[in-house]
Parts: sequence; structure tokens; C-alpha cells
Amino acid sequence: MDLTPLMKPKSIAVVGASPRMNRATRVITNLQRFGYNGRVFPINPRHAEIHGLPCYPDLASTPETPDTVVVAIPAADVPAILTAAVERGVRGAVVLSSGFAESGPAGQARQAALERLAAERGLLVCGPNCYGVFNIRLGASAFSADMRDPLAGPVAVVSQSGGFSHAIAEHLMRQRRVGVSYIVSCGNQAGVTVEDYVEFLVDDEDTTVIGVFVEGFRRPDTLRRVAARARERGKPIVALKVGRSENARQAMLAHTGSLAGTPEIIEATLRQSGILQVTSLNEMLDTLALLPAAGARRGRWRTAVLSGLGGECGHVADVADREGVELPPLSPGSIEALRTVMPDFGNPRNPLDGTGAMYENAEMFPRLVDVLLHDDGVDVVAVNMRASVPGSGGGAPSRQFARDLAAAVRAGTDRLVFCFGSHAAGDLDQDVVVPLAEAGVPFLEATETAMQALRHAHEYGRIVERASRPSPSPPRPAPAWTRSLGGMLSNAEAMRLLGEFGIPFAETLAAPDADTAVRVAERIGYPVVLKIDSPDVAHKTDVGGVRVGCGDATSVREGFRDVVGSVRARAPQARLDGVLVQRMIAGGTEMILGVQRDPLFGPAIVCGFGGIFTEILRDVAIRVPPLTRDDALAMIDELRGSALLRGARGRRPADVRALSDAIVGLAALAEAHGERLVALDLNPLLVLDEGRGVVAVDWLIQLA
Amino acid sequence: MDLTPLMKPKSIAVVGASPRMNRATRVITNLQRFGYNGRVFPINPRHAEIHGLPCYPDLASTPETPDTVVVAIPAADVPAILTAAVERGVRGAVVLSSGFAESGPAGQARQAALERLAAERGLLVCGPNCYGVFNIRLGASAFSADMRDPLAGPVAVVSQSGGFSHAIAEHLMRQRRVGVSYIVSCGNQAGVTVEDYVEFLVDDEDTTVIGVFVEGFRRPDTLRRVAARARERGKPIVALKVGRSENARQAMLAHTGSLAGTPEIIEATLRQSGILQVTSLNEMLDTLALLPAAGARRGRWRTAVLSGLGGECGHVADVADREGVELPPLSPGSIEALRTVMPDFGNPRNPLDGTGAMYENAEMFPRLVDVLLHDDGVDVVAVNMRASVPGSGGGAPSRQFARDLAAAVRAGTDRLVFCFGSHAAGDLDQDVVVPLAEAGVPFLEATETAMQALRHAHEYGRIVERASRPSPSPPRPAPAWTRSLGGMLSNAEAMRLLGEFGIPFAETLAAPDADTAVRVAERIGYPVVLKIDSPDVAHKTDVGGVRVGCGDATSVREGFRDVVGSVRARAPQARLDGVLVQRMIAGGTEMILGVQRDPLFGPAIVCGFGGIFTEILRDVAIRVPPLTRDDALAMIDELRGSALLRGARGRRPADVRALSDAIVGLAALAEAHGERLVALDLNPLLVLDEGRGVVAVDWLIQLA
Repeated sequence: MDLTPLMKPKSIAVVGASPRMNRATRVITNLQRFGYNGRVFPINPRHAEIHGLPCYPDLASTPETPDTVVVAIPAADVPAILTAAVERGVRGAVVLSSGFAESGPAGQARQAALERLAAERGLLVCGPNCYGVFNIRLGASAFSADMRDPLAGPVAVVSQSGGFSHAIAEHLMRQRRVGVSYIVSCGNQAGVTVEDYVEFLVDDEDTTVIGVFVEGFRRPDTLRRVAARARERGKPIVALKVGRSENARQAMLAHTGSLAGTPEIIEATLRQSGILQVTSLNEMLDTLALLPAAGARRGRWRTAVLSGLGGECGHVADVADREGVELPPLSPGSIEALRTVMPDFGNPRNPLDGTGAMYENAEMFPRLVDVLLHDDGVDVVAVNMRASVPGSGGGAPSRQFARDLAAAVRAGTDRLVFCFGSHAAGDLDQDVVVPLAEAGVPFLEATETAMQALRHAHEYGRIVERASRPSPSPPRPAPAWTRSLGGMLSNAEAMRLLGEFGIPFAETLAAPDADTAVRVAERIGYPVVLKIDSPDVAHKTDVGGVRVGCGDATSVREGFRDVVGSVRARAPQARLDGVLVQRMIAGGTEMILGVQRDPLFGPAIVCGFGGIFTEILRDVAIRVPPLTRDDALAMIDELRGSALLRGARGRRPADVRALSDAIVGLAALAEAHGERLVALDLNPLLVLDEGRGVVAVDWLIQLA
Repeated sequence: MDLTPLMKPKSIAVVGASPRMNRATRVITNLQRFGYNGRVFPINPRHAEIHGLPCYPDLASTPETPDTVVVAIPAADVPAILTAAVERGVRGAVVLSSGFAESGPAGQARQAALERLAAERGLLVCGPNCYGVFNIRLGASAFSADMRDPLAGPVAVVSQSGGFSHAIAEHLMRQRRVGVSYIVSCGNQAGVTVEDYVEFLVDDEDTTVIGVFVEGFRRPDTLRRVAARARERGKPIVALKVGRSENARQAMLAHTGSLAGTPEIIEATLRQSGILQVTSLNEMLDTLALLPAAGARRGRWRTAVLSGLGGECGHVADVADREGVELPPLSPGSIEALRTVMPDFGNPRNPLDGTGAMYENAEMFPRLVDVLLHDDGVDVVAVNMRASVPGSGGGAPSRQFARDLAAAVRAGTDRLVFCFGSHAAGDLDQDVVVPLAEAGVPFLEATETAMQALRHAHEYGRIVERASRPSPSPPRPAPAWTRSLGGMLSNAEAMRLLGEFGIPFAETLAAPDADTAVRVAERIGYPVVLKIDSPDVAHKTDVGGVRVGCGDATSVREGFRDVVGSVRARAPQARLDGVLVQRMIAGGTEMILGVQRDPLFGPAIVCGFGGIFTEILRDVAIRVPPLTRDDALAMIDELRGSALLRGARGRRPADVRALSDAIVGLAALAEAHGERLVALDLNPLLVLDEGRGVVAVDWLIQLA
């Protein structure tokens, strides 16, 4: 999809503008204010001129075909106008109006009309129910917010919510001096979706970091492909995805008609795609401010903190610990150097407390910074300072600190350097922020979000490193023989399918009567387990349908009678085909492997310990296919109880490698069958001692 | 301790002031700027006048005895000056100078001198290494920060860190219009401690909410007593306690010479004392802003949210869900009323999206507010709006919203009403904040911290409700017979002690030889367990010192031989006294009960499940004595695995009541022995089926 007409329009028509201020008029004043070079055509049959521009009665009358039309009129009139636009040859449309998918059946019908124009006539529809698109460099603001002082730069913001797109971008530009390339608010995504914008931005030379606020993704495949390309190009994507709670999911339906999807599966998809996930706007802001400076920095992230606030030193140490940011001890050389710089009562350690002396002796701060920047054990230098605007007559020591720090960075360093305040509050003093920004030093606003941002930047370094590793093998097709199947697979079908995807299971044979059961048991070897064989019984133990530890023929006969009798009594409607005979497996750790599905994002693999871990502690790991063995091992390590498999409490280490192979096989099976796979559970799968493998002992597979 | 001379000084001497600006001079200009009514005496032998005030050569020369002396001179000179002050009859001293406990042996000696003056001569020492004390109402700023525009009000801020005390108070006053009663920065706490200031403030009529930033508490008993009084008076205390991480603990030692203490025990103490705990300055700010309005509000906290940002509605729903804030559906009546107010595309739900129409139609916002304020199912109304200062020419719809909301609140409501922005960033528009503040409506700054603040306010309501419940029984003394004991208790002593505190255990008798072991086993009944009886063996199973399931005399004799033989071979140095014979208990859930100690805060009771829960999942609950049964039950419920005791997975419910009794008994035992109790572990304690009680089957008790 070529978004050029929407993102870099050469001319813009605005439908709905009038001499009094409304959303469409705001677009015109914005275009004028920000020096847009293209032609602007107000459309309004009741006026000859609007804000000094000649006004046209309709789209057919404009002297040339505009690239994009901005529409801010009642929802009912929008489909007709867009149809006229398509007929005029217009390629992009920004629909600011509300009253579509977010608002009942009539609105949904209107949205469907827009979607048809997008799908069938190729119209690039931004919105409806949005603020539009702002290309900052071109001043091309098909964007209805009241904006001031835009600053062009490397960060793109894409948000379904117009208010959030504006709030994030404006704060970055005005307070942090972080430049922005594009602001996109795409509302209901009737045509162009969040994924499409991100695709454009990943290839946009002016953009290096992309921030996304999203209620519902629409094209998971595009998302995965675009995310992979972003990793290759070293462009981080930061996402705030709402919809974890049921209430939020309802709110989103009401806001942009978005389906939130299954939160765990979407989070797994984002994580595996290398998209950084944040949960608050302040975390988003600090992360977007840090990433342009951090880039795709690899290697270690040992961080030294300098503060003029003693209280901050303890506080940031706690926060760094919580966020997994490493604040190592300073090198002996640095400690010695600091002793000569600091007053007697100073303590040369990390975090480094510059003490009140830092404010009194102007030579001290640059010397402290110099020591930290030259410590061989330090990769990142984080300087805590207050940057609220000083009142009249107030001192502003941070201004001098900022100049000193900027000079030190300009003198040359390969360290990542940033500044942070202890809390987010109040305007930032531009006499602090600007010299820092000009030297490439971001200012972050609070200890917590600064450390979160640093964690994200570090994580991004790891993502880029991982991107160069071998990818999972290409997807396997579903075996031909499964194509005709449907419903719950029989025991034999299930075993065959597991076998073809390399998932080991305990051989299980059907026996319609007691004599056959004995013969089968003798062939596979005692002791055996008997399970009721019925397509109608899902939970066998609940109806007395399982008998373990049958050690000889007598016990098998007895077991057959008991199992069939018990199920017949407790589930009289069920069809009974006899029993399944399975060799009993001794020992092993019980685990559960299964497949969960999202209607849009498809299947995900779920892995957890059996028993209390899954049922009471909800200790499960989730990943979407395809998976490599490393992915599967990471998934296992993520479980709180994973130490049990590694040999905790005097156990022998379990066969984690075989478990990871089973997970990889299950992922391939799930991928092969796609949405045909309705349900799959291996419960339990026994993980035996190292070298002895894994064995699924009970399973349930259902195809559509 | 009467802090009046420090907190409400009638006159103040300042040592170290000079005509050029330094920390002492700043105190003088602050006193002048804020209209302090008392007399101010600069002390400096080299000047006759400073900032228009007559200057005195020393403390002996002042025309009257000042209540308090502020000292900002090199640390080495401080003890002599304070001695002179005591001799002059001065009662309070604010020591701004650094170079005390935070800085090596010489500094520690100087701090000891100050502590002696405080302890022996009754001098009220604030600091050293601090910003001092600021009584806002009196303008009595024995406080060295560059302050502007103080606003008197109900919130007191006490902080060891001067920088944080200033940052918190200034932001509350200037941005939020939340008035402050006192700002106290107490640094190293050589004399007056955080607990002492809080004690003063709890009884201060001008203070209703107290915020505390603390590195190390000094007087746990005072803290508990003061917290209880604060609960009685309905004055919430909000604490940010640093020192969770080891690095922070070292940083604090370097900053104010504070010992952080054991984090889990201090957190338990604070929680049980009804002190609200926050982890960031932004959370502190929003909580301190909300609490004066929320007061000790009880009952339900069903919250309705109104926003003009659709994106915020989903976001706040997620955040509320995470924080446990209830956003219930609106009542049918409200939904009907909203349908008449909102445009077609609006959705009357909670959170309520006012949509763009809210900005275009001035009548809409007050009507939406009116509906929410009159919904019978709503106790709290939270209005999301942007309050960053608009640029020149920018619209400011929030100003009108603020006036409308203030008017609605003034018209009378018993709902708690507050506003919040989506993120903390930039100066707050005072034309929004002031009308709200005047109507008693706080403005909070970010969705996350606003919902955290609401959770804290709700929690405070519960704390106040709980405060009226019966308190734990008064402490029992240690039994007289334990006073002469020391070291590891013998088996018989341990059983006697457990018995006296009502903790059930499996009767366990010593048998020096195999014949005795058989006799004992026959008396207590087979099967029995044999355990090595040795004061030198702590982990009996590690040396083969345990034999379970001895069902008859032969097996007891065999077991005796094996156990003694095995321990002799594997621990040849250990003194062996034969074996302990214990009746074997069948079934039950294995739990661990124990006592952990903090040098200052004393003992805490730790409770967890045996095996993987404690060892791998670290699933333990911790409380400090004394405990009521309700406390013990809450402690059990806090365990992630607690469902196991309640009868999960087809188990029979366990005897949770008996377990809670054992916890209460253990708490009484720990309290009775105080710091004499070095170690106590019941591992395991078996919790039997409901009605069958609990039984400790192994124990270790050590007294000092």
C-alpha cells in the first residue's frame, strides 16, 4: 500500500471549513501556520473565500485534483463525499467526523461504506473518528488539533486516539525538544490501519523510532512482517496496547469500534516481534525520548548515576533494582579520582551523590562527570537533575550542569548519556533541555519511567542481536490425511498427528472388550492404565473412567468391568466403545501443553506445570508459532516453577531439551492447521529424567 | 518530646549568615520574605548588619534567648556552637551542615557529640545534613531551600532528604494548590527523628495528612504508637521508604548514615500500623493531593470516570482494573438520562466518553457531570481533563470544565470528586486548578498515579474501619522458667514452650538407647518416626538422622541402629544423645512457621507452605506481633497457594482456624521473648483436615 498521497500530499482539499472556527477550519489554519508548500482547497458552497484562500463549491470544481481530502461534516454525508472524491481521482481521505463503527448499527453501515471505498476503489482512508495525519517536515497538517511550535525530528507517533497522538507528540516536541516526523491519529481504521502506517514509517528515512497507541490491531500478518523489517533496520517500535481488562475492551468498542483480542496472545505476538510494550503515557514519553539517543546500541548497559540529591541515590538504586538496571560499583581508579574531587563528607560510589558541594563549587560537576565518562566499567551515564523552570530570582544550577554536560559529551564519548528528573511535574526549563538536546542528551522526567526506558532500550539491543540468529524453519503444511477430518479426533488419529509432528506419547490401544484389553496389555507390557473410550466423555476421571496400575490380567478384567460400569452409570447417554489401554509411565514431572486461539491472531502455545501450578498459581508461559528451540527454552525458563525441571530440591534434572522439542513440534502442528485447530491439550505431558524424554499420556484434539 | 521551640519558634538565631548568599543567608532571606513575625538574630563576629538586621558576634550577645538556632558552618565547629547554644538556654537547633554520620569516623564522632547534646541536655536537634524546618503558616522558615509562593494548608511533609522535602512541598503548593502546614527535612536525625516529627504533626490542628520520605526509621515503638494515634484521629500517613535493594541500603548509609533495616519487616510494620506505602514521588504527590479531600471516607468507592478523550476510557479501565479500583456499570436511570444528553454516536457507559461533542457544545459537560453525581451506584466521580497551560491563542476548554465542575460540587454533593490528567507533564494551568481547588476538588496528574492514589484513599477508609475493631490481647510475659535458658533449647524445653503458647506439636520423647526407644514407641503408639537427638545436628535428614514409618519393635531397633550409625559416620564430631521418638502423623498440608528478626524492629512471624512454595516460589506472608486471629487469617489468605487450604482440587478443607491460632500463639511467644529469641522454626507444621487441628512435627528454638 503506497501511502504517499496521505503522508506526503502535494495538495489538500478541506471539506467542511467555514469562516468560523471548527475542526476543518483548524486544519486550514494549521496548514497556513506550519508553512505547508502544497495547494490548499477549502470546499464550501456557501463561501467564496475562507481564511484568505479561494473556496470551491465542491470537489469537482478544484483547479487540480488534490492528493488528499480532509472531511469534517456530519457522518451521514461522508460516504457520498468520498465517492465524489474517488470519482475526482483523489487518492487519500482523512475523515475527522465521528458517528461510524463506534456508534450503533447506522454508524456501522456508514463505516462499511468507507471500507468498501477503501477496498474496492483503493481510497486511502485515514479515520473516521480521528485527528488525521501531520507530516511535520512538510508542515502538511491534515490534522485537526490546536498545535503549536512543531519540531521536526526522528520520532513518529501513531495512535488510534487523536487526543493521545497530540498529547504525546506535543510534549515530546515542546518540553523535551525531541523532534517528531509524523503524527498520525487513525481512529476507527476503516481503510489504512496502524500496521500500514508503521510499514510506511519503517521505510521512511526521516523516522528512526515509532511510538504506537493502539486499541485493536487489524492485520497481524502485516504487523509481524513490518516488525521484522523494523528489526532489520534497527528502528524500535514502542506500543501502548489497551484492552487487558474486560471494561477496557468494552470501552474500545465504544470508542473506535475496535476488537481488543486476547490480551495474552497479542502481548506474546508483540514481544516475539520485538515490539517494546509500555503501560503508561509517561513510560511511553521517556522511552520515546531515550531511544533516538540509544539507537540499536548492543553489548552491556552498566549504568552510573550522578545526582545532587542524596535522597535520590537510594531511591534510584531501589528503582533500578526493580527494573533490572545494573548499577555496578565504580572502578578503583574512579573511586580514587573522585576522592580528590569530592569534599571529605562525600562518598565515591554508584549512585554518586555530588552533595551540596556540587551546587557551591562550579568545578566539581564537570570533574565528576569526567570521571564517570571515563570509567571502563560504565556504559551508560545517567545524571539526575531538577529541570523545573526557576522562579524570578531563583537560582538555576541545572542550567550550568546542562552546559557542562553538553560540553563533555561534545568532547567525545561512546557512552550513552541521559538526564532525568526525580518526578514528572511542571514545565521543563528550556535553558536546561535545549543545550542537552543539541548535544544529543535526552532529558527524561521521572526516576521510575527513566529506569523503565533504560530497560526498554537495553531490551531493544537484545532484540537486534537476536534478529541476526537463525529464524524458525518455514511452516510445514497440514498432513493431507487430516484435511477430511473434523470434530474430536479419535485416539488413533490423534496419535498419528502427534507422531507426525514429533511429539512423543504413550502408546494407547483401543480394546472393545475385556479379552482384547488383556491381549493388548500383554503386548504393551504391565502395568497398564485403562481409560474409557468414548467420543462423548471429555473429563474421564470425573465419571470414574480411569483405572491406573493394572498389573495383571485379572486386574485388567476387573478394571474393564469397573470403568465401563461406572461410566455407564454416571453418563448413561454416552456412547461407549470399550477402553483404551496404555502402558503406565512411572515418574516424571506433570506438565500441560496446549493451544489457545485468538480469532484474528490465530493460535498460541501454552505451557505450564500440571496441578497447582496451573490451576492455582496460573503459572503458564505463552508464545505464538513459529518457535525455535531457543524460544521454547525461554518459555520454560519463564515459568516460576522452572527450577523444578532443572533439578531443584534434590530431584534429578528433567529432560528439558525433549520438552523444548515437544513445544517446537506443537507450534509447528498449530501453525500447520491454523484456524482449523479448534482445541488441543496434552494434559499431562510427563517430563522424564534427563535423557529419557517426554511422554504425553492424555490428549484431546479437535479440528473444525 | 515537646517540639514547639523547633516547630513554632518565637525567635531564631542564624549562625553562618553573611552578606553574600549562602545557606544560612538563604534562611534569613526566607524568613524576611515569608513574613515571619518573630525576632531573627544573625550571628557573625565579622559583620554588624546582615540583610538589614543587626548582627551579633555570638549567641551570648543576643538581646534575648532565641528559641531555635540555625547552624550552617563547617561540621567541625558545630559541636562547640551547639554547646554554647545549650548554655545560652536555646532549646532547638537546626543543623544544615554536612559532614556527620554520612562521612567516615570523624563525622561519626561529631554526630555522636550532637546526639549527646540531644540526649543529655535536651537540645532538640534537627539534622545535621538537612534543609531544616519550615512552618508555613508562621512563615517560620528555618529552612535553606530557595522557596517561592508558599501556600498554607493541611499537608505536612517530613523527609530525611532536603531536596525531596522541597520538591514534594513546592509542587503541591505551586502546581496543585494543595496547601502545606510544615516542611521538615531532618537529614541524619541526630536528635529529633522522623517519628518525633510525625508525633507532633498528628496532634497539630493545622495538619490532616502527613507525607514521609524516609531512609531509616529510628524508633519503631514511637512509630507504632504515633501511627495508632494517627488512625484514631483519622490522619493518614503516606510513606516512601527507600532501602529495598542492597545498593540503596549502601547509598543511604552514605547519605544520612541511616540503617535501612529488613525491608519485609519494616513494610509489614508500616502496613499493620495503617501507614500507606508508595514507591514513587509522583504516586506520593497524587496521594497527598487526594487525601485531604477523601479524608477518612468509609464505605464503598464505586467510581465513575468521565473523559473527553476516547482513548483514555480504555486506558483508565485497564489501569483501574490493575489497581483494584471498581468502575461499575452506570445505573439504568443514568444511561437513559445520558442518551438524551449525548450525540447519537456517544455510548453511555463507564468510563464515559464525552466525545468531541463535549468540546463543541458547552451545555453537555455540566449535564454529564450532573448525571454521574446523581447516580445511586456511584460514590466517586473522577473527571479526566488536560490541564497543561495553553499557548497564546490556544483554546482552553478545561477552564470552562473546571468552572462547571466546581459549580456542580458547590451545589452540594456527598460524592468524592477529583480530576486527573492522562500523564504528568508540564505546568498545570492555574485557571483550571484554582477554581477546582477552591471547590475542594483535587487535580491529580496521571492516570496510573491517580488510580493508585484512589486505591490508597480506599485502603485508608478500611484502615480507619479496622481501627475500631478489638485490638490484640496485651502482650504476655516470657515464662519465668525460660529466663535462665540460653542457646538451642532441648527437645523437652522446646515442647514445653510451644505448649505454653498453645502451639500443638507431635509428642516427642527422648530415648538414649534402643530398648527405651521401643518402650516409648509402645507408649505413644505405632507407627513412629525416629530422629537423631543431638544438640550439634541442625539438619537431621542431611546426615541420615531420620527414619520414618517404624511400625513395630523390630523396626524401631533397626532404625535406632541405622540412625545412630549413619550420623556417627557422617558427623563424627557431634554429641549423640540417642534418638527422639515421635508418633507419625498421617496426611495434612506441610507448612512452615517461623520467626525472622530485624535488629531494631524486632521479630516478625513468617508463614508459608512447605516444599516448593517456600523454596522455589518464595510464597511467604509476614507480619509483626501482636496478631489477632483476623490478622492471622489475612496472612494465610495472602499466600498464593492458600486455595490449597480452602479445599481446592478436590481436597478436603484444612483446619485454617487452628492454623490461625498457631500463628497467633507464635506471635505471642515471639513478642514475649523479644530480642532474646534468636531463632524459631516450625518446619513442617502439618495442617490437618478441618476440625482436626495442626501439629508441629519438627522445631528449632534458640534463645540468646
